[in-house]
Parts: sequence; structure tokens; C-alpha cells
Amino acid sequence: MGFTPRRYLGVKPPSPTLLLPFLLPVLLVGGQGDGNAAMDNVVTERMAEESHRQDSAYLLIFIMLLTLTILTIWLFKHRRFRFLHETGLAMIYGLLVGVILRFGIHVPQSTSDVVLECAVNASPATLLVNVSGRFYEYTLKGEVSRGKDHQVQDDEMLRKVTFDPEVFFNILLPPIIFHAGYSLKRRHFFRNIGSILTYAFMGTVISCFVIGSLVAFASLGSVSEDFLCIYPALKSHRLSAAVTVLAIFNELKVDVDLYALLFGESVLNDAVAIVLSSSIVAYQPTGDNSHSFEAMAVLKSFGIFLGVFSGSFALGMATGVMTALISFYFTKLRDFPLLETGLFFLMSWSTFLLAEACGMTGVVAVLFCGMTQAHYTYNNLSRDSQDRTKQLFELLNFLAENFIFSYMGLTLFSFQSHVFNPMFIIGAFLAVFLGRAANIYPLSFLLNLGRRNKIGMNFQHVMMFAGLRGAMTFALSIRDTATYARQMMFSTTLLIVFFTVWICGGGTTPMLSFMSIPVGVDSDQEHSVSN
Amino acid sequence: MGFTPRRYLGVKPPSPTLLLPFLLPVLLVGGQGDGNAAMDNVVTERMAEESHRQDSAYLLIFIMLLTLTILTIWLFKHRRFRFLHETGLAMIYGLLVGVILRFGIHVPQSTSDVVLECAVNASPATLLVNVSGRFYEYTLKGEVSRGKDHQVQDDEMLRKVTFDPEVFFNILLPPIIFHAGYSLKRRHFFRNIGSILTYAFMGTVISCFVIGSLVAFASLGSVSEDFLCIYPALKSHRLSAAVTVLAIFNELKVDVDLYALLFGESVLNDAVAIVLSSSIVAYQPTGDNSHSFEAMAVLKSFGIFLGVFSGSFALGMATGVMTALISFYFTKLRDFPLLETGLFFLMSWSTFLLAEACGMTGVVAVLFCGMTQAHYTYNNLSRDSQDRTKQLFELLNFLAENFIFSYMGLTLFSFQSHVFNPMFIIGAFLAVFLGRAANIYPLSFLLNLGRRNKIGMNFQHVMMFAGLRGAMTFALSIRDTATYARQMMFSTTLLIVFFTVWICGGGTTPMLSFMSIPVGVDSDQEHSVSN
Repeated sequence: MGFTPRRYLGVKPPSPTLLLPFLLPVLLVGGQGDGNAAMDNVVTERMAEESHRQDSAYLLIFIMLLTLTILTIWLFKHRRFRFLHETGLAMIYGLLVGVILRFGIHVPQSTSDVVLECAVNASPATLLVNVSGRFYEYTLKGEVSRGKDHQVQDDEMLRKVTFDPEVFFNILLPPIIFHAGYSLKRRHFFRNIGSILTYAFMGTVISCFVIGSLVAFASLGSVSEDFLCIYPALKSHRLSAAVTVLAIFNELKVDVDLYALLFGESVLNDAVAIVLSSSIVAYQPTGDNSHSFEAMAVLKSFGIFLGVFSGSFALGMATGVMTALISFYFTKLRDFPLLETGLFFLMSWSTFLLAEACGMTGVVAVLFCGMTQAHYTYNNLSRDSQDRTKQLFELLNFLAENFIFSYMGLTLFSFQSHVFNPMFIIGAFLAVFLGRAANIYPLSFLLNLGRRNKIGMNFQHVMMFAGLRGAMTFALSIRDTATYARQMMFSTTLLIVFFTVWICGGGTTPMLSFMSIPVGVDSDQEHSVSN
Repeated sequence: MGFTPRRYLGVKPPSPTLLLPFLLPVLLVGGQGDGNAAMDNVVTERMAEESHRQDSAYLLIFIMLLTLTILTIWLFKHRRFRFLHETGLAMIYGLLVGVILRFGIHVPQSTSDVVLECAVNASPATLLVNVSGRFYEYTLKGEVSRGKDHQVQDDEMLRKVTFDPEVFFNILLPPIIFHAGYSLKRRHFFRNIGSILTYAFMGTVISCFVIGSLVAFASLGSVSEDFLCIYPALKSHRLSAAVTVLAIFNELKVDVDLYALLFGESVLNDAVAIVLSSSIVAYQPTGDNSHSFEAMAVLKSFGIFLGVFSGSFALGMATGVMTALISFYFTKLRDFPLLETGLFFLMSWSTFLLAEACGMTGVVAVLFCGMTQAHYTYNNLSRDSQDRTKQLFELLNFLAENFIFSYMGLTLFSFQSHVFNPMFIIGAFLAVFLGRAANIYPLSFLLNLGRRNKIGMNFQHVMMFAGLRGAMTFALSIRDTATYARQMMFSTTLLIVFFTVWICGGGTTPMLSFMSIPVGVDSDQEHSVSN
């Protein structure tokens, strides 16, 4: 299981060996001075090569997983087998590979890890180590074990498979959201914009209060430690992009209003969660761990929310309009579809990054950028580029989505610092469920007072059911797993996502027919980006 | 310029602050135990967020660079301005941004870096640091300064912009090579296969001997230190993918035989270089720094070369054929162009990774995979997927190529450990030039004895001229910049690449007309992948 004690410094000098065996004797014999430096260089070279080889192998695992998923999806589609969605499938494959990596393969333990017993007061982001006169730079990857009373776990391979969460956030998420915006039925989205904003903002606030007070109630004893849980909880659990369910809805061509409501709520939740978490951080330093929100604070949060939301909205629109203008004025660009497509792709991606870099929400920005691109730029493009962009984003969306889900499956076993606390998990499920219920039903009641086109009870049940969390939650909660509380959050999130994908994903089709919600509607608008 | 001395441990406790200013007082006041842990968590959270924001900003810089390049390329094409190739342009933009980042912007120095003065005998790949009972994992990024007599340079931003070379190798390089294979005029490649193999294998060996003996001759005094230079030299300098010149040739539709010769040689050099470097490493441990190759060693090297080359070749072919078979037997896959394209893309990429993971050369594997895919799989694909794959790889190639070149420009100023040694640079240019000359002219003479279709003197001059190094050299030499010798190599390589792109790239068109080599030929076969 990997509970190998590491060698401690001073007891035995560590050797930098991820190396081929034949180099070992030389290392042990190795002389001093120049000769030693020479050997060091060859050693470094060898290490770099070995590390490159490993990186290739790890990436290969994921590519193979995706290939397998595609072949099985094809088989499913061919046999018209709909019980399990492709994302659930990707997850299962990931899970299997995770089990194999964890229990099946035992690579020789790397002897290159050293435990430094230095008295550092806090964990810095970068570390410089003075190795006999040379300085080496190290970057923080995260906390490894749970405390000093536990052995430090060690498995090079598993640690390497669990790679940088920034990749998810900056590379895999944007295409998914952009594609959603690009192929969205904008008419229905804007027809329901009021309800969407209500669910997104009011609903999230309600859920937060419910979850927050439940957690506070459950843990009166150790308040300060548990307060930490609310913070990531707000951040990750309130982000219900629910990509799976949406994907199924999209495929089944479910009622467009229901789709618009769910989709809009999921995406805008991001903006709300960011604001809530930042306002909580602004509170924290006052010292008292009170969970109460004062009136001023709520107003201030609302102000920040409006700022973040409208800022992201404006940014997304601006980039979209700019691309449209470039493609309109530089008409000669049409002669070079490659340049045109490249420009389109880069401008859209930069929206996300720009928003994130400015501290706004890239998800909202890239969503509206996608909508603007579809509305304006699309019509300025050459026929060739129209096809290219549509196909490119479709492919990227497909690959990114399946990658994320197979990675999730893999992570359940490959992540080394899982903290499964049964009480916390049950509590989290309960809190999320209650929070969701306190959000959907009362708000729907209120909204129905003003809506001509009422939100039926069946819609409300589906929203309740589909409101659990998907890929984005995962991406957000894996971003920082450095502390104990966050590791617990991460493990719990993972379980909730699994639950969502398998139970909710698998149960969507039966549920829709049980609730007598029409599917297969509005197929004429499907795959048209210019409606 | 960033020569800020860091705070040393023990003198002053470091604070983990990439944080917002308002959190600082709290940190300083911060209590013990739980409360402190709570603050630590908020702090970690903040750090993660700040780091995410920065990462977004750095990625944004590159996206912006690419966007700018595309717009300027369009302008150039529009005005039929051919003096500077787009890759040269990307480089110039990168250079400008590098200068701005280096000298223009002064971010507040991160106080989160700590210098640990622990007596470690060697630099391990992973470090565990015990911070008051919690273990944090750190990974090695490389050597920072030149020695103990230098101050440790510190610029968070510049260090972060110089990102992981594995990205180049595993993500950016495969599409370029695959595209080359996929759109290659296979007929001309195989017509010249004998000459290509001769140039690639014999030529590289000759060049190595010339460069090696020049370096050895120049440095009789300090043999052991300088011997290190040969090793990376072999590895990086002998890899002349010369992407720029090839791109220009491709665009000008230069004589297909010349193109095939240069292209084939460039790509196969990789295999040769890998073998040569690994056989040198196998020598090194014997202790004597003799530069002589014995007969057995040459034979053994030749055997390894054959193994690596044929292994990669077989791997590439096998993946290609497998994809072809899948697309042939699973004919129903044609109904889902998205799945088909995804499968095609993933299978092709996995070839590269598989070969690298097996210690073979991914470049050769993915090249032949591309050729096989174009020859067999392409015809099995649906019409829709044929267009999709062609356009996808065209776009990926375009983006990857320009990304690499703008990154190269940026690196000249952002890389912190440049070692510019004028003597070494002049020597390297001279050695590379002589090595190239000793390779091309005698071999061409020998080859012409057997060829019906002689390689003319003008072709030879162009091959000499175009044989300098491009993107791949760079990607290879940046893979490991941990030691002094490698840093010097890296800086020198960068200069040689710059020289290649600007002088050779800019001078190609005049040179071709001066040498009266026909351009604009065979345009009927251009962009057809099924010739």
C-alpha cells in the first residue's frame, strides 16, 4: 500500500538515482572534484531522460484511456445502449486503471526522495537548497502526509499520475464552456435570464446558509477547525456545472427551457461562488469565527458579485466583438482559413485567461464570448472556417470532457492523501441535498408568481436531481489539496461527483420519462450556431 | 536586474506571502495551534488563487503573442512580403516581450523563497520538508545560480515564464512532425531513402567526430570539464530539424527531391543522436575520459541505431495500420465523424508517447505513423473526417510551430541562467559549420557515384546552408538546464537557432534564386495527402 518509511537525512546519504543500474557502481566509487562534477552531469542527464520517459508513459495512460472510451462509446452508440453515459464510462475506465496502478504495479521505490528536517515555520512556495555550493530550486507540490504521527507515503508513480490541476483549469475547462456557449440556444437562455439569475445568485446564497449552518451546528466543539471546511465547501460544492447531466440533456434534446434554466444556473454559479468565498476571506481576518453575515456584508457581496459578473460579461463580449470586427474589417483574412481559425481559437481562449488573470471568472467570460462569437463572428467567417471552428470546438469539448472524467476515476485510487471521513461524507451529502432543496423549491414558487410560462413541479424535481456537481467542481477542488481540510473536501467532492455521474447520469432518462418531460424537441435548432 | 539577496533561514523567519496586503497583519499576530492552522489554510488558499492568477497571466502572454503573430502574418501575406518568415516574426515578438518582462516590469520580489542551508550531498528529484509536523513535497526545478560565489538570482515572474520543457516535447513537437509525415510527398521520400539514410547516419557520425575533436583540441587543459560539452553537443547540435527552412521550402514549393533530402535527414537525425548519446554514456563510466571510439563500439552503436530506428519505424507503422484496421472494420464508426477524428488523433499521439516511453525515438515513430495514416487510414475515413483531420493537424502544426518560435524569442531574455561564453559560441558556430561541411560535400560526392539523379552542387550548397538547427534542437537542449555546462549549451543553441531563423530563413529565397533552384514546382500535389 505504499507505507514505506523513507530514509532520513543524516542517517544515510541519499543518492540521486532514478538511474540505470549500471551507473550505480560508478556513483558509489565516484571521486572528488571535477570528476565528481562530471559524473553529476551525466547523472543529471540520465535523470532528465528517465523522467522524460516516465512523463511520456503517464500521458500515454490517459491517451489510451480516451481511446478505449471512444471505442466503447462507439460500441454503445452502435448498439443503442443508453444506460451509461460516455462520461460515466470514461470514469469507470479511469477507476480500473487507478486500481491497477495502485495495487497491481510495484515500481521500485525511488531512492531520490529526501526528508529534510529543517525548522521552517511555514511552507514557502519555492525552496532553494544549497547542495555543496550549488543552489537548486524546488517548487511546492503540496502536503504529503496527515501529520507527524503518520508515516510519509511514498509512491513516485502515483504521485506523478496526479498532475497539475492548473492544466484542468486553464487547458481543459475553457473548451467545454466555450463550446457550450457557442452551440447554445441563445433565444431560450435570454428568455429565462431572470429566473436563471435568481437561481444562480439567490439560490447559491440560500444553499450556503443552509450548508454553513449545518456544518456549524454539527461541529460546535471544534469550531475553528471546521470553519475551514465551509470555505472550500462554498467554493467547490456550490459550483454545480453538472456537465454530465447537461450532456445527457443535450443529447436527448430535452425541453429547451429546462435546459436553459439548468445550464444558466450552473454556469453563473461560478461567479457567485467566487464572490462568496472572497467575501468570507475578507471576513476571516477580523479574528472572530462568527458565521453571521451582516447586512452591510451582504450588500457588499452583492456589489462585488455585480462587479465580477458584469466585468466577466463585458470582457467576454468585448473579445467576441473584437474578433467579429477583425474578421469583418480584415476581409482578406477569409482567403486564409487557417489564420482565421487560429485567430478565432486564440482570441476565445485568451478571454478565459484574461478574465482569470484579472481575478474575474473565466467561465462566465468564455461563455459569453462563445455566445458573441456565434452571434457575430460566425457570420463573418469564410464557409471553410465556419466548419473548421465548429468541428474544432466540438472535438476539443469531447476530448476535454472525457479526459476530465477518466482522470476523476483514476484519482480515486491514485491520489495519495485521500481523507475519507464517513461522518463528514454523510454530512456533506445531506447538507448539499438540503441546501439544494431549500434553493430550488422556494425560489421556484416565488419565480412562478411572476412567470407566465410556469416552472412545473416536474421541472423542479429534475433541477433538484440534476443539480449535483460535475467536472467543474472537481477541477476547482483539486486546485489546492495542500491542507488536511482540503484533502477531506477533495475526497468528499470526488464521491459526490461519482454519485452524480452514475446515479444521476444513469437515472436521467428514466427520471425524465417518469416526470413526463418531453425529449427530442426542437431538433431543427440542434447544431446550428446561428439561431 | 534581480540580484536581490534572499533572506537566509535562521536570520529571519520567512512568511509565505504572495498574499494580499490585508492578510499580513493577521499573519504576524497569528496565535498558536488551531487558530494558526486555520490561518495557514486561508493563507494556502490565497496562495493557490494568486498562483492560479499568475499562471493564467503567463499563458495569456503567449496567446497574445500568437494572436499578434497571426495578424501580422496576415498583413505580410496580404502585402506579399516575403523577406521574413512567420516563424521569424513570432520570434521577434517573443524577443520584444522578453525584453519588456525583463527590464520593463518590476514585480515586488516574492518573499516566499527560502534558502535552506542543509548539507545534502546531491540534489534529489523530490524533497520532503518537515514544516512543524506537516510534510510538504517539493520537486526539483533546476540549478539556479552558477556557484557559491554568485548571488542567487531571484525573479519569480521570469522563472515562471520559462516553463516545463516536457510540454514542448510531449505536446508541441508531435503535431509538427505528424503533420509533416501526413502531408509528405511519400513518393519522393522513398525515392531518395538511400541518400537520406546516408546523410542521416554517416553524416551525423562524421559531424560528431569533427565537432568532438575540435572541442577536444581546443580544451586540452581542462579535459574532464569540457568533455561534458561534447555530450549535450552531440545530443542537441546534431539534431537539425531546421523547421523554419523546411517551412519556407514547403511554402515555396521547392524542388521535391531537395525537400525530401533535407526533410528526411532532419527527421532521422534524431534517431542517430539518441543512439550516439546513449553509447557515449555507456562509455563514460569506464573512468578514462578518452574520446576514441573503438571498432567494437562503433559496431555496437550501429546495432543500437538499427534497433532504435527499426523499432520506432515498426511502432509508427503498427499504430498507423491499427488505426487503419479499426477504421476499416468498424465501418459504422463513419457515422460518427467526431469519434472517428478523436480516435485518429489519439492513436497518432499515442505513437509518439509510446515510442518515447519505450526509449525509442518518438519523432521517427510519429513521422512514419503520419505517413501510414495518410496512406491507409485516410481512405477509410468518412469524407467529413478526412477534412477534419487534415484541418486539425494543419492548425495544430501552425500553432505549435509559432508557439515554439515565440517562446524561443522570449527565452533569450527570460531564462535566468544564461551563460554566454564568447569563445564557446564562436567555437560552436565554427565547429557546427565545419562539421556540416565535412558531412554534406564528401557524402554527396560518394552518393553521386551511385545515383542516377545526381545531387547537384547547388543542392549541396542549399543543404549546407539549411542544415542549421531549428525548433527541435531548442526543445531538446531546454530539456535539462540544471548544470553549468548545459546552461552554456542552451544559450549557445539559442543563438544558433536565432541565426538560423533570421539569416538562413530570410536568406533562403534569395539563395534559391541565386542557386537557380526551381520553386513553385509540383503544385498539383500540394495539400493532397493521398498521393
